[in-house]
Formats: sequence, structure tokens, C-alpha cells
Amino acid sequence: MSPRLSLFRRCFHRAASLTESGEVGVSELVKRTRNPIRELVDRMGVKPNPKKEVIPLSIGDPTVFGNFTPPSHVFDELKRIYETGRYNGYAHSSGYQEVRSCIARRFSPPSPSPQLTANDVVLTSGCSQALDYCFSVLFEPGTDSVLLPRPGFPLYQTMCESKGIHFSHYNLLPEKEWEIDLEDLDRQLQSQPNVKAVLINNPSNPTGSVFSKEHLQDLLFLLEKRGKVLISDEIYADMGFPGVSFHSASSLSENVPILSVGGLAKQFMIPGWRVGWVIVHDRQNTMGGVRNGLGTVATINLGPCSLAQALVPSLLEKTPADYFEDVKIRLEEHARVVCGGIEKIEGLTAVRPRGAMYVMVRVDPSVLKFEDDEEFGRRLLEEESVFVLPGACFQYKGFFRIVTTPPIGMLEEAVNRIAAFCSRHRL
Amino acid sequence: MSPRLSLFRRCFHRAASLTESGEVGVSELVKRTRNPIRELVDRMGVKPNPKKEVIPLSIGDPTVFGNFTPPSHVFDELKRIYETGRYNGYAHSSGYQEVRSCIARRFSPPSPSPQLTANDVVLTSGCSQALDYCFSVLFEPGTDSVLLPRPGFPLYQTMCESKGIHFSHYNLLPEKEWEIDLEDLDRQLQSQPNVKAVLINNPSNPTGSVFSKEHLQDLLFLLEKRGKVLISDEIYADMGFPGVSFHSASSLSENVPILSVGGLAKQFMIPGWRVGWVIVHDRQNTMGGVRNGLGTVATINLGPCSLAQALVPSLLEKTPADYFEDVKIRLEEHARVVCGGIEKIEGLTAVRPRGAMYVMVRVDPSVLKFEDDEEFGRRLLEEESVFVLPGACFQYKGFFRIVTTPPIGMLEEAVNRIAAFCSRHRL
Ligand SMILES: Cc1ncc(COP(=O)(O)O)c(C=O)c1O
Ligand SMILES: Cc1ncc(COP(=O)(O)O)c(C=O)c1O
Repeated sequence: MSPRLSLFRRCFHRAASLTESGEVGVSELVKRTRNPIRELVDRMGVKPNPKKEVIPLSIGDPTVFGNFTPPSHVFDELKRIYETGRYNGYAHSSGYQEVRSCIARRFSPPSPSPQLTANDVVLTSGCSQALDYCFSVLFEPGTDSVLLPRPGFPLYQTMCESKGIHFSHYNLLPEKEWEIDLEDLDRQLQSQPNVKAVLINNPSNPTGSVFSKEHLQDLLFLLEKRGKVLISDEIYADMGFPGVSFHSASSLSENVPILSVGGLAKQFMIPGWRVGWVIVHDRQNTMGGVRNGLGTVATINLGPCSLAQALVPSLLEKTPADYFEDVKIRLEEHARVVCGGIEKIEGLTAVRPRGAMYVMVRVDPSVLKFEDDEEFGRRLLEEESVFVLPGACFQYKGFFRIVTTPPIGMLEEAVNRIAAFCSRHRL
Repeated sequence: MSPRLSLFRRCFHRAASLTESGEVGVSELVKRTRNPIRELVDRMGVKPNPKKEVIPLSIGDPTVFGNFTPPSHVFDELKRIYETGRYNGYAHSSGYQEVRSCIARRFSPPSPSPQLTANDVVLTSGCSQALDYCFSVLFEPGTDSVLLPRPGFPLYQTMCESKGIHFSHYNLLPEKEWEIDLEDLDRQLQSQPNVKAVLINNPSNPTGSVFSKEHLQDLLFLLEKRGKVLISDEIYADMGFPGVSFHSASSLSENVPILSVGGLAKQFMIPGWRVGWVIVHDRQNTMGGVRNGLGTVATINLGPCSLAQALVPSLLEKTPADYFEDVKIRLEEHARVVCGGIEKIEGLTAVRPRGAMYVMVRVDPSVLKFEDDEEFGRRLLEEESVFVLPGACFQYKGFFRIVTTPPIGMLEEAVNRIAAFCSRHRL
């Protein structure tokens, strides 16, 4: 290094951009942002059994095994859209008007209720960004608070921590098909005046529950009484098993301000395309500021990929009914294989899901000798190369989550290995 | 309304989710987030002349007129990618490994300098999100400060305001082809110890400047001396006119920590696809925390559309050289038509660009009777239906910006109308 340069290096080390250690420092936001799943997997710190092929029942991506695919008309539509040459430029920052109108039509409550318009919809880069925008607009960090489901999708908590938004959890009840413990919820609403909104996830990851109309009505009654906003994560909308109806919270209340978030990811088997949305259900005209605010934050990063956006109407309006039927029938069968197998294993109890692509399984500590769900997950991976996520990832100890989308044969093999594993570890 | 409901409504109005006015309140973040261009256009508040067709010279989207299109092999590549069926699921949260490797290869400095790897690259939803991530990771709101170019792309300031990050501006010099006023910059670096990074935009929006190698070296020398990080917005990389070489700042310094941001938007005429990236140039090993931090923030919203990501290698490595040549030749010709026409108009001076798709034009207040650039823009729209953005949008009064991508005929017509307009408004 030349003497001139080394002089600079010295100045450099005293510079505002560097920490004591000589590193460029990072913001508190980054330090607060945690990925609980990755942390837990790191903590498990074990390798799969090299003698057995890995069966990943951990990944919430239905496309990885090639057995769930998008509707077959998608590519022709993509070709048509590409060839117009009109979808390479910037869309409106909230999304193409025609696409937002289509979503508004699709998710409007039955008339004569007031119908949604394009202005009530903001397109986002996946449902994750839809949640991000809702949190950014609605909550003042350090002041407002939000109630999150337990067990629940870990991103909710990660986002709150990252943004410095206060949160606490309300309980879901495994013995009541994972319904919300409304008494617990109401106690918290009464004792925590800073709670501004309650978040629900219906159908649910990780539980596979689908709330009944009556349960949602009870929840909405309570929220109305307590004057709270509802954020309804409906990324698994319409993914109840055959015979199980999905009700959007927004179709059941005219008085609760509701932000519902959703997207194409799961229903159309294209999570990588990153198309999501926020819908503002504002029947009482109390959310003008929120609606504008969502539009404002969307001007910073702009919306999802224009080509993917442009496919929304084809997907929502031209997908044949039997595509959805087929997916639901198969998801139910996958869940049945998993639950049927698990139920035969002493010490494990599967809570039967009613939709989506997950099953939560309870580990009975009076039958199986594991310290906790983390030890269960670690040893299952180490001994049987079966990868499940411990309930701790979802703030719910004593359970683990199985993703049901792998092919049936793989699920059967996994269940057999879990059975052998448990029989070796009985008390 | 039933008595029961009206009782609830009353409770509701006292609830934490509502402001005094009965509205659901929004965060300070939203209140701080402004869109200067939209505000200015609203403030102009005039309609185009209904007798003349509108000529928009205001939109920084090269695709709107159909005269600039993506490379012709793109669709076949998209078809190939779609048909593999492997690009519908979630990519890694920082982007596909193979895509990040490709970007690392493409933007590595000439060897024997250490080469970039996939770990130095994070894919983002457009260059906008790349900037967003850099700002979130690097700056502590209320503490650190960043220096921004004036004139400059308004998003920089909007992001700082939204996030509560302190900023100030350094000047670009129109009389020196918009080079940085390095004395001004150094004065600010010395007087503002909290400045952690300097942001440059090269080639530049709104000036069309392309910095010479020597100028960049002078800047880097200064940054090294003062120990600052450089954020280099290179979204117009390689878009210098024929004969004008583009140098990435990262190729000229081994000692300054550099984050360069870029994307596919402009060079490949697909801004709507939302593919951008951050590249961490960390030759002094001071940015481990920043690199990890960028990866961490990317886990929240995940990256750009998987199909669009997957096209990056085809675009960067298989686009024929004459595609780029053709674009550059045409952009130069467009700029020449604009500047040639403007130079003939008394009271206007165009600063000749060296690349990209913009020209800044000075309005001489001793020749033309307008109060300021806003009045110029407003009356030009009202009388001639020609839409230009006043310099105030770029924190630079006394100028206006012309986008040069509309077809030549439209540019000629626009220049004629501007000439007629100016001749009517001479002092
Ligand atoms: C409950 C829930 N909400 C939101 C998301 C995020 O959806 P997206 O991939 O569209 O961002 C997921 C993804 O797994 C999810 O399970
Ligand atoms: C200087 C500059 N930086 C960043 C961007 C944003 O790029 P993207 O559309 O990829 O988000 C633009 C877009 O106009 C720009 O002009």
C-alpha cells in the first residue's frame, strides 16, 4: 500500500461510515429483523441421515415436486399478453386499473352490499408485501399494537419486530379445530387499549383450519364491539377441502373496517411470480386515509411484474372450475394420508385440517421421550432424514408442522419413518 | 341501524383504531411519504389545450410509444423457461443463485481484482427496491445522513423522508456537463460528520450526463479520504451514446466500500418487469454486516418475479451487441433532435447529454417572462399541450426536463410548439 493510501486508510477508520471494529455499521432495523425458521434450523444444527433420502415436509411451496402446476391455459395467455407489446412498461404504481377492477369484482360482497372498485385494491409483490404495506400504513411503531394468531405464520412477528411495532398473540384452540379463543382475544382487547387491529389467517398456515361462518361472525361481532380493524390474511382463500366453504371476513360484516390481503401464490401454484394484493373494505367510510396511504407507499417500490399482473384476469376469470376441484380433492387426499398415518402412531395426534396444505401434529411428552418439539424435529431429521418444522417456528411448542403437498408416495414413506422413529423413542 | 348496532358504533368511535374524526388513523411514515412529481403536477392544476394533441415529454418510460422494444430473443427464452416448469416456485429470497452468479460475472472488475460472487448480489423488485434496501440497511433514521445529487431523481429524497433519514444535496454543475461540484461535496463531507454515504447516479436522470473516468476517480479519491460509503445508482449503465464510455464506480476503486444498484428496466426496455439488484463491492472486508443485512431485509418481501429473474442470464449474456448499438445510436439521435431544436430558441439552453434518455433545458429569465420553471411548465401544457417536468421536481429550479424517447416526429413537433410558445412569451 502506498504511504498516501495508508494515510487515507487511517482517516477512513475514523469515518462516520465505520464502526469501532472498522466495519460499515448497519441500522437497528436490520438488527431487529429475525428469521425464526432459519434461526431454528441453524440451532438444530444437524445433518440428515446420509443413508436415507431426505423428505422435506417443511417447505411451504407447493410447486417443488412438480405435482401441483398452474392452470394449463396460463402459457397461452402469457404469450397473448407478451405479444401485445403493451405490458413491458411501468404499470400504475397501485397496479393496472383493469387488473384492480377484476380483483374488485371477484372479491366484492354479494350485492346489494356496496361493491368494491379498483380504488379499493392495491397490487403488491406477493402477499408478503401486502402485509408489509398494511403494517406500514396502519401502525405507528412504539405506539400502536396488533394481535397475532398463535400458532401463526412467522412473518407476522418478523415484520412487527423489524418495524418496531408492538404485538402480542391470541390463542387458537386445537381442540376446537383451531378456532380463535375469543375469550382470550377479548380479554386482551380490553386490557390493551393500544391494540389497533387483529390479524387473522383463514384458511391458516400452519393449522389448515378454515373458519366457519358462525365463528367469523362471532369474531366480527367482537371486533365491532371493541372498535378494532381486522387484517384478514386470505392467501389460501377458497382452498377449503371439498364440502368446506370458505367465507371471506369481508362478506360477513358491514361495520368492521377490514383490510384483506391475498394473492395468486397458492391457489394458482405460482408463488414465485410474486403477485399479491390488499383490498380495503371500507363500508363505514373510515378508511380513506388508509386507502390513500396504501397507494402512497406503493409509489416507492411500485407493484409486481407487469406481465404477471396482466395475467390476473385470465387466472381469476378463465380458470376452469375443475382445476380448483382437482386441487382441493388432491389436497384433501394428501391430508388424509398424513393424518391417517399419524393417528396410528402412539404419542402423536394430528389435528385434522379443513383446507390449505398443512397439518399440525401434537407430540405427547408422556408417551415419547423428547425434551420438546425442537428435539423431536432435530432427531427426526438426523435419524430418518424427514424434515418437519417444530411448532416453535410458529410460537407453538409441543407440536410440529407437516406440509402435505409432496407426492402421496413420499408422504407414506415419511409417515412410516416417523412411526419407526417414534417406536424407538417411547418412554 | 338496530339499537344494538348503534351502541357498538358508539363504542367504536372511541376505539384505539380511530382518530378524533372517526377515521382509522395512519402512521407518521405515510404522512412523511411524498411524491414530489405528483404534488407538482397537482399544483400545476391545468388541463392541456383541447385543440392540440398532448405530447408527453414527462414520462421516464421508454416503452410507451412502442418504438423501443426488448431484444427479440426474449420471448423464446421466456417460453423455454416457462416450459421447464421449474420457475413457478419461490426463488431464494436474495434471488436464484445462478442469476446472482451471472450478475456477479457481468459486473466484476477486470481481473486480477477480486471477482464478485453470487453472495455479493441481492435481486430486488426493480432498482427502486434496491435503493430502498440500501437505505434501510445502511442508515439509522435520525442519526446517519446521506448526500444526494441536485438535480436528482426525486425518489431518493422521497425515500429518505419516508424512512426519516437525514439528507442534504450536493450540486451538479451544468457548465461542466453536470459533473459533481467536488468542492461543494467536500465542504459538506467535512462539515457534516454524520454523513455516512454519498449517492451518485451515473448515467444520470434527469441530466443525461455520463461521468468520465477521471471525474469518477477524483470522486473516489475524495470518498476514500473522507471514509464514506458510495451508493452508485447505475440503472442507466452502459447507456452512454456511441463513443461515450460508461465506467462503473466499482471498477475504479479498491478502497471505497460501494453498493451499486441497477436493473433490467432501461437497458432492456422492460421497466414493468421489476428486476433490479444491489451489488456489494467489498474489497476491504468492511461490509460483511451490510451484505448480511441486505440478505435479511430481502427475506421479508422476497425478490422479483421468478420468471423475470430467470430471464436475466439470457438478457445479459445472449443479447446481440447490435441491439445495444441500435438503442444508443437512436437515443443519441433523439437527443440531437431535441437539443438542436432547443438551441435555436432564444431564451432556452439545452445542456447536451452524453447518454440515457433525458435533457435538461435552462429557461433564461432575462429573455422569457415566466416567474419560474413551474409557470413555464404549466403554461406550456395549457397552451401547447406539451408536458415537460419543471426542474423543481428534481430540486433544480430554472430548468425543465425533456424525456427523449418519444418518436422523432413527435419530438420535432414538440420543439416547434415550444419555439412558438417562447416567441409569444419573450420579455
Ligand atoms: C399465511 C401466509 N401469508 C402470507 C404468505 C406470503 O405469501 P406470498 O408468497 O404471496 O408473499 C404465506 C406464504 O407462505 C402464508 O403462508
Ligand atoms: C435514476 C433512477 N434510479 C432508479 C430508478 C428506478 O428504477 P426501477 O424502475 O428499476 O425501479 C429510475 C427510474 O426511472 C431512475 O431514473
